Amino acid sequence: MKKSKKLKYWGWGYEETTLNKEEIKSLLNKLCKYGIVSSDKRSTPPIESINLNKPKIEIPPNLKSISTEEKYQRILHSFGQSQPDSIRTFQSDFNHAPDLVSYPENENDLITLYDFCEKSNVAIIPYGAGSSVVGGVTSDVGSKYNGTISVNLSKFNKVLEVDDVSLSAKIQGGIRGPDLERSLKNYGLTLRHFPQSFEHSTLGGWIATRSGGHFATLYTHIDDLVENISMISPNGKMNSLRVPGSGAGPSPDRFMLGSEGSMGIITDAWVKLQKKPKFKATAGYLFSDFLSAAQAVRSISQAGLYPANVRIVDEVELDINSASKDSYTLMVISFENADHEIEPWISRAEECCLDHGGIKDVDWRNNPLSNQHGVVGAWREAFIKMPYNREELTPRNIISDTFETSITWEKFDNFYHNVKNTTELAIKTITGKSGAVSCRFSHSYPNGPAPYFAFHANSSEKTMLEDWLQIKKAASDAVHKFGGTITHHHAIGRDHSHWYKKQRPNDFGEILSNAKKYLDPKSILNPGVIVE
Amino acid sequence: MKKSKKLKYWGWGYEETTLNKEEIKSLLNKLCKYGIVSSDKRSTPPIESINLNKPKIEIPPNLKSISTEEKYQRILHSFGQSQPDSIRTFQSDFNHAPDLVSYPENENDLITLYDFCEKSNVAIIPYGAGSSVVGGVTSDVGSKYNGTISVNLSKFNKVLEVDDVSLSAKIQGGIRGPDLERSLKNYGLTLRHFPQSFEHSTLGGWIATRSGGHFATLYTHIDDLVENISMISPNGKMNSLRVPGSGAGPSPDRFMLGSEGSMGIITDAWVKLQKKPKFKATAGYLFSDFLSAAQAVRSISQAGLYPANVRIVDEVELDINSASKDSYTLMVISFENADHEIEPWISRAEECCLDHGGIKDVDWRNNPLSNQHGVVGAWREAFIKMPYNREELTPRNIISDTFETSITWEKFDNFYHNVKNTTELAIKTITGKSGAVSCRFSHSYPNGPAPYFAFHANSSEKTMLEDWLQIKKAASDAVHKFGGTITHHHAIGRDHSHWYKKQRPNDFGEILSNAKKYLDPKSILNPGVIVE
Ligand SMILES: Cc1cc2nc3c(=O)[nH]c(=O)nc-3n(C[C@H](O)[C@H](O)[C@H](O)COP(=O)(O)OP(=O)(O)OC[C@H]3O[C@@H](n4cnc5c(N)ncnc54)[C@H](O)[C@@H]3O)c2cc1C
Ligand SMILES: Cc1cc2nc3c(=O)[nH]c(=O)nc-3n(C[C@H](O)[C@H](O)[C@H](O)COP(=O)(O)OP(=O)(O)OC[C@H]3O[C@@H](n4cnc5c(N)ncnc54)[C@H](O)[C@@H]3O)c2cc1C
Repeated sequence: MKKSKKLKYWGWGYEETTLNKEEIKSLLNKLCKYGIVSSDKRSTPPIESINLNKPKIEIPPNLKSISTEEKYQRILHSFGQSQPDSIRTFQSDFNHAPDLVSYPENENDLITLYDFCEKSNVAIIPYGAGSSVVGGVTSDVGSKYNGTISVNLSKFNKVLEVDDVSLSAKIQGGIRGPDLERSLKNYGLTLRHFPQSFEHSTLGGWIATRSGGHFATLYTHIDDLVENISMISPNGKMNSLRVPGSGAGPSPDRFMLGSEGSMGIITDAWVKLQKKPKFKATAGYLFSDFLSAAQAVRSISQAGLYPANVRIVDEVELDINSASKDSYTLMVISFENADHEIEPWISRAEECCLDHGGIKDVDWRNNPLSNQHGVVGAWREAFIKMPYNREELTPRNIISDTFETSITWEKFDNFYHNVKNTTELAIKTITGKSGAVSCRFSHSYPNGPAPYFAFHANSSEKTMLEDWLQIKKAASDAVHKFGGTITHHHAIGRDHSHWYKKQRPNDFGEILSNAKKYLDPKSILNPGVIVE
Repeated sequence: MKKSKKLKYWGWGYEETTLNKEEIKSLLNKLCKYGIVSSDKRSTPPIESINLNKPKIEIPPNLKSISTEEKYQRILHSFGQSQPDSIRTFQSDFNHAPDLVSYPENENDLITLYDFCEKSNVAIIPYGAGSSVVGGVTSDVGSKYNGTISVNLSKFNKVLEVDDVSLSAKIQGGIRGPDLERSLKNYGLTLRHFPQSFEHSTLGGWIATRSGGHFATLYTHIDDLVENISMISPNGKMNSLRVPGSGAGPSPDRFMLGSEGSMGIITDAWVKLQKKPKFKATAGYLFSDFLSAAQAVRSISQAGLYPANVRIVDEVELDINSASKDSYTLMVISFENADHEIEPWISRAEECCLDHGGIKDVDWRNNPLSNQHGVVGAWREAFIKMPYNREELTPRNIISDTFETSITWEKFDNFYHNVKNTTELAIKTITGKSGAVSCRFSHSYPNGPAPYFAFHANSSEKTMLEDWLQIKKAASDAVHKFGGTITHHHAIGRDHSHWYKKQRPNDFGEILSNAKKYLDPKSILNPGVIVE
């Protein structure tokens, strides 16, 4: 069934799934309100029209059965899902397409691949599902290499073992979200790590990028759900001990987490599961301004309640996504549990919201479907569709991108104003026209939130890549200057490398370089990512 | 006031604090019941009788004001608090005493120290409060060095900054637990990281060893309470970005956490605080056997209740410490919170206990002092006194030691039986007589517990060190063989190095070696710990 579905090479998910006409019209109308005007839609470059270079490397006999130079495959693996990836796709800029795409099936295949690439000076791009929004799988590695192979890990797609006593499972790195959850369902278990990209991203990709999931508090990053990791590098194999909590020296898992394919390929991991939640409740509150809503989040985060979800979404994001007719900040808060009624938890959270001026949007009381109603429900619908927006906007010369960070509460107000204003000003200066900058919180901690910004701006086919680059630079400079991390969960990839190096202690950079020299002495793995 | 108190060089804490005669008698009687018979107490070697080598190095002029070769100081800094440390102390084995003890006051002093030691091939032992139970501060570094300096960090003892909006503080590494909490109290805040060694251990020591604190679930290790870390190495300074949650590459904090003085000296850190709890409740339940109690812990740990405390203590540990007249396993469970009544939480936890056959020891209902009554209260009393036991037992030729680990629930029963039996058998084989092996859980996770074993055995003055070594080896081999980590929170030091190297992925060992070569090229920092 899956086989018959074809993945878009120009956007999100399967070819058959796109926004419908109504949805597109509504999105464009909303953007218009902010002065962002659509050009006529350029057509998606048809596969026949795309010129690819002849592969620079020949498939060696021992890789034949797992490799392809098929045009669609090389195009599909040229880019991930970043804004510049999208811009370059619609500009038919595929000069850098990988020479080969390989689908290794086991560890031996990986070793064979490494051997070949080390000997032939060929770069490897580990590829999970290609949902990277930071150029992590963009196969553009410069001229130092004799070629590039995109290594698609989708054959590492099995749940190998389930331990339903310890609530854990050993799962291969290339499995996609839905397949992973489907396998666990038989046991009444779930990982409950749902990034927005869940459908088209993999466990190995999540671990490699320290992805942020469904849980807005407590178990925010995949880091917190990992029990051990197996990783294969050109120079060997690392397999950490699977125990609930080790204090034995610096953590090897935390070294592999966030290594983004630069140190090795994550083949499998034991992860911590939950029983399927039985008790669930979602409430929604509306606040007159974003900062009051933020204060409500702070009080909930510092109260030790640990909601599964506590997200605030500002009026601009609600408006652009047609989730609200009025000008409010929405808070969605939900609790879930396999063990006990959560009424005391959500009641206390509600008090925090009312204390900070929130008014009820949807009530959780006696309302098991509260998450489908009110502004909460409308935003949830919008959230599911959002990944499809860009493939409509890029070819209409509208820049649409997001960036995310985290910051302590004490610095938050100042940070928020400065980052928002800087980005707005940059859009105006660079494109000559106003844009829209919105904000939500994706995750929250007792010591601070993870703000998630989105921006939309006018552009033109010719200037789009450069316009984006300048806006991104201004926004990232501001995030860095005002104390935020360059990424809370979107990873470093190639696009954040400049700020990552500024934020990372220099000595730690050297340590990673030395680690890379040891694990990947010929530097074939994902060049330009994490370590130069 | 503090100044007038003198630290014992042969045991725990200040000279003025020891067990009283009644307490000693009761302990010896209890041990007798298990066939462990006290010899006449050897006297503590008086300071005058101890022979120290002449310092092998001369205090350089630029270190004069911060260094001392005073005999008491050199003796005090010769050992930490491990069983072999204690045995060697009572055997007057101070050949390896550090040549100097330095008390640096600032970063410049550290740099001066590093310079001198690099040039003169002198080893440095970073010393927090010397509570290491694994030989982490034992200044016995072999003959490769021209001398040893124990670097006491107690002058790094200030709370530098408090951010009461984000509930965080920047605190120096050498501060002891009580001083840290005293400073935070003015703000109504608390770190609430209370290892049993709280009184005589430091923030820097906790971070360096990934110590386990008061919280039995959720924020178990100091790792979870760290926001950023500053560390000075011979080759420079690392200072990670202070943000609530970063996903930017592998975590630099997690590299410094657990480095045990082998990579650099932790000068300060931002840590996450809590508001002083207003709502507290403690309950106690008695179980007929340890494994049923363990099942109750599992159900509580997997229910998402996150008690501050959930510890079980077996009948042998209760008995030896005179905490119970009957033969039960005790569970202590407590909840605490600054924000809301915890009745629903503890009620549900109680159900889990009753479901697994627990019977009430103390009731939390309308009983704010429940933690001081029943077996719960008796065990709490005993827990506070335990650190003083060893200084009474070693000179009576009784071995008393603990080891701790973590293991998934699925493996727990088998692991528990095998480790307990192996240790019991080893004691019998090695000493020719039965000993006592007891177990408690120090921390618990949804995927498994952290079992904490204690053992007592007969020995003789002459064979004590070797007896201990053999028993420790048998126990550690079993921990490793049956799948546990060599340490959940007691660290590696010199004593766990053999098993640490077996458990740690080889490649990760190489990465740490390379990191050390970069940060500490002359290998002057804590030789033999973490990296050879
Ligand atoms: C619409 C959309 C929504 C998103 N929402 C979220 C979100 O909610 N939270 C979030 O965190 N991210 C989100 N992302 C970003 C992205 O989905 C994550 O970074 C995700 O973890 C990437 O997974 P992937 O399997 O697609 O990896 P890829 O994109 O294929 O690869 C990402 C990086 O990891 C490396 N890599 C992949 N697999 C492995 C492996 N097995 N071993 C070693 N290295 C590997 C690659 O080389 C690359 O550097 C979103 C992206 C999109 C397009
Ligand atoms: C009675 C008793 C009870 C204990 N209970 C617990 C417990 O409940 N939980 C627990 O986790 N541990 C416990 N321990 C072990 C010990 O207290 C911990 O390992 C503690 O973290 C050590 O802190 P310290 O400041 O005394 O460090 P030290 O013992 O002085 O040093 C420990 C290690 O860290 C290094 N180090 C110390 N300070 C620094 C620094 N600033 N920078 C770099 N390296 C440094 C040292 O070189 C050494 O390798 C206990 C020990 C005793 C004796």
